[in-house]
Amino acid sequence: MSEVSEGRRARGGGGAARRAERTAVRIECAKFIERNIPNLEILNEEALEIIEANAETILEEVGVNFVENPEALKRWKDAGADVDGERVRIPKGLARQLCKTAPSSYVQHARNPERNVTVGGRGLVLAPVYGPPFVRDADGGRRYATLDDFHKFVKLGYMSKWLHHSGGTVCEPTDIPVNKRHLDMLLAHMTLSDKPYMGSVTEPVRAADSVEMSKILFGNDFVDQNTVMTSLININSPMTFDGIMMGALEVYAKANQACIISPFIVGGAMAPVTVAGTLTQVMAEVLAGVAYSQLIRQGAPVIFGAFVTSIDMNSGAPTFGTPEAAHITYGAGQLARRMGLPYRSAGSFCGSKLPDAQAAYETSNSLNMGLLAGVNFMLHSCGWLEGGLVSSFEKFVMDADQLGVLHHLAKGIDMSETGQAMDAIREVGPGGHYLGCEHTQSNFKQAFWRTELLDYKPYEAWEEEGARDTVALARTRVTKLLNDYQKPAIDPAVEEALNEYVAKKKASMPDAFM
Amino acid sequence: MSEVSEGRRARGGGGAARRAERTAVRIECAKFIERNIPNLEILNEEALEIIEANAETILEEVGVNFVENPEALKRWKDAGADVDGERVRIPKGLARQLCKTAPSSYVQHARNPERNVTVGGRGLVLAPVYGPPFVRDADGGRRYATLDDFHKFVKLGYMSKWLHHSGGTVCEPTDIPVNKRHLDMLLAHMTLSDKPYMGSVTEPVRAADSVEMSKILFGNDFVDQNTVMTSLININSPMTFDGIMMGALEVYAKANQACIISPFIVGGAMAPVTVAGTLTQVMAEVLAGVAYSQLIRQGAPVIFGAFVTSIDMNSGAPTFGTPEAAHITYGAGQLARRMGLPYRSAGSFCGSKLPDAQAAYETSNSLNMGLLAGVNFMLHSCGWLEGGLVSSFEKFVMDADQLGVLHHLAKGIDMSETGQAMDAIREVGPGGHYLGCEHTQSNFKQAFWRTELLDYKPYEAWEEEGARDTVALARTRVTKLLNDYQKPAIDPAVEEALNEYVAKKKASMPDAFM
Repeated sequence: MSEVSEGRRARGGGGAARRAERTAVRIECAKFIERNIPNLEILNEEALEIIEANAETILEEVGVNFVENPEALKRWKDAGADVDGERVRIPKGLARQLCKTAPSSYVQHARNPERNVTVGGRGLVLAPVYGPPFVRDADGGRRYATLDDFHKFVKLGYMSKWLHHSGGTVCEPTDIPVNKRHLDMLLAHMTLSDKPYMGSVTEPVRAADSVEMSKILFGNDFVDQNTVMTSLININSPMTFDGIMMGALEVYAKANQACIISPFIVGGAMAPVTVAGTLTQVMAEVLAGVAYSQLIRQGAPVIFGAFVTSIDMNSGAPTFGTPEAAHITYGAGQLARRMGLPYRSAGSFCGSKLPDAQAAYETSNSLNMGLLAGVNFMLHSCGWLEGGLVSSFEKFVMDADQLGVLHHLAKGIDMSETGQAMDAIREVGPGGHYLGCEHTQSNFKQAFWRTELLDYKPYEAWEEEGARDTVALARTRVTKLLNDYQKPAIDPAVEEALNEYVAKKKASMPDAFM
Repeated sequence: MSEVSEGRRARGGGGAARRAERTAVRIECAKFIERNIPNLEILNEEALEIIEANAETILEEVGVNFVENPEALKRWKDAGADVDGERVRIPKGLARQLCKTAPSSYVQHARNPERNVTVGGRGLVLAPVYGPPFVRDADGGRRYATLDDFHKFVKLGYMSKWLHHSGGTVCEPTDIPVNKRHLDMLLAHMTLSDKPYMGSVTEPVRAADSVEMSKILFGNDFVDQNTVMTSLININSPMTFDGIMMGALEVYAKANQACIISPFIVGGAMAPVTVAGTLTQVMAEVLAGVAYSQLIRQGAPVIFGAFVTSIDMNSGAPTFGTPEAAHITYGAGQLARRMGLPYRSAGSFCGSKLPDAQAAYETSNSLNMGLLAGVNFMLHSCGWLEGGLVSSFEKFVMDADQLGVLHHLAKGIDMSETGQAMDAIREVGPGGHYLGCEHTQSNFKQAFWRTELLDYKPYEAWEEEGARDTVALARTRVTKLLNDYQKPAIDPAVEEALNEYVAKKKASMPDAFM
């Protein structure tokens, strides 16, 4: 397929037979999605104008808090905001004006240039789950995540054809000290994959490590002149920008590295219980956050983010794949496009504890909405389980397979002569069938999305093979992908330098687990 | 909730205690969906015009077959078509002209007027799975369906809040002779539910029985003047209209009863392997079928149907929830709207053998697409399993729960002052939370869709209760709904007359199992 570029082959390792077997593995990676279908525009012009005006009113009248960050308060004051303690009230028009220097799209470079992604426009870049402290697999159940699990997820991401991005904290390696694990995570993304990756945000100094290690991988000059990371800056909704996250944003923006400015919305708890109210708050928060990024460095690449869930009012639990989250996601996409910013939202969201039907209903609802909402960067696009507490090995490959559906949906409808198929219809005629006709033979290979996971066997064959459900099929696929994994080639001197940086940094401080 | 009307309570039966317990059950039924969100318009004007022109070209040059139906050939000839053997070639413009008398929407009456549905416009009416010879449940596995199963599915449909329609062959009662089972099926829909239902199409005489029994239920005059059935007429694609299906259509159209004129498309087998080619064939087939219905009776209500699957080119198996099926469903919706006809497509489609994650991915893909494609009548909206070979009890209630998502999605975004929630945002401010605020307290009950099935419990509580997956939760819900079921009130004289009709008809002919 023309949209899929073949990956590099691994070098060296093992005997001749093993080498021959291994080089037979084809590592494919699809180009990021470029949509040829429309977005669903759920709000009309009037509604959008109301939300935008309300957001400016909130910024001016209520304001936002920049906490434990005197520098930020000074920057805001200098820019013309009304600063009162940690409260920043932003006169109407100011935030929007400041946002204008943010680019409408940017290229995030990967160490393998074939894996570069463009974030923005009609594009959609897919990245895996981010942040869970637990993992689950069909054999070991649910347990705290380790660095070994982390490595496996990075490898699965590298082996997943429809995934364009290696992500960031694919799970929390809880066996590594909190103050050192970002080094191991970055090293894994940089050496076990050649797809683009995310930087650390848990402390400004860890963001600085991310920039330094990227300079080793790409070269100093390259990193100065290009974006090689997209990192996740959460807003502490409602309307609070904490010093640590802003500190990380400051490091990245200064280095011209991209950040997602992302309200963290649990509707009814961190935002109003209504959709329009939530969109207003999201808009206000993103305006303030993006404006602040441009106060750090004009032109720094940023993404309009919206992490959205609703809440189960009986239990207080977050819920996923719900219609209200879809409304917000569609609406926020329109607001992002009107600001001329790339948009991050959606993912393989679910509340289910298991990769079962509930998980899949919720996930499909979220993935479909993400595509049609015009999302440009979809974090959590595979592997998410249990409200984000768990990275699931089986669900990772299950979701990753469904990401192929999004690719094919986004292609739109081929209206060429081949697409119109008039000769085929004439040839087959009433009562015939198309299986053998020339048009079918010429086009069937490209015509349909093909799963690499799901079962289409006749009932009897399926039963004979053990009547396996999706989790059982996924378990087999996880094993196969990890067995087939080959490390992408890397300059040994670069790898050595990365290892040295990590070792030196680790040796420079005592372990901390808090 | 204002959108949900309370059902009637059952009369009589059992002791006082049991009666008191039973009357405590609230049987709810949502009004059919009226969309307040846009459709996804995947094709532009130029593409639509090409497909429409190509369809007319096919009708004129290639034509369609009306087989074993000399009357139909005569009708076509009289209408101006070129008839050659069973081949009917329709000059450009003729079919479209004939279609103009078909109504753009119609009301299908239920015996309980609160359950009437309007088919067309911005509406969406949801009906259950249709046709499977097998059933599956978590206890008994997969087996041939019986009349007892049929009764259970009708009861589940009646108890399902988001289901507007009782459907037709919710499963094939294979223990009843083929020539008599339509009588038992109709009797079940008429007496065990008060929602609208479908008529039999497997022989014209069975369609006539459906009309006769409806006259007993509604009264002769009422049926003459109103539509009380919507029945499924499949086209034998490509472009073949068989005598039996057309015979049933003729019975219904003459009686002013509605029919879905539905190409049965397995892309790559019964239609071209490309989307635009398939849309062309669908358009040609619907034009011919709808035009024919209007030759029978001008103004007879008909639906533009499109049953769409693609094919796995490795195994030849039909596949569901695929992007190509979505393209066709979106495109056919646009064609139907341009013809001014109600549109039937989508459903809880899946190829999976089990109600597992695969089933749910495929189903959610199909349901979401159905809503956004502008479908007006969605057959198979719950309970479909294994490519339509199986009606699944658990999947019926799983899917039926997801239909609530469609209802809430379709509501769109409330832009009232309450929706905008400015007071709440002002009240809570940066760093606060919305759980206790006045706006949340006043609105949370209506704010979010609420599942009646899925699990949102904390991990520990969920584990303590047996770590149940979706199928286990659904199994419990099936049992509960069947236990809670109460037969809706019916005039005993009417029920007696229906029973008599069925008994008399059954006695009038020997059993036939072919």
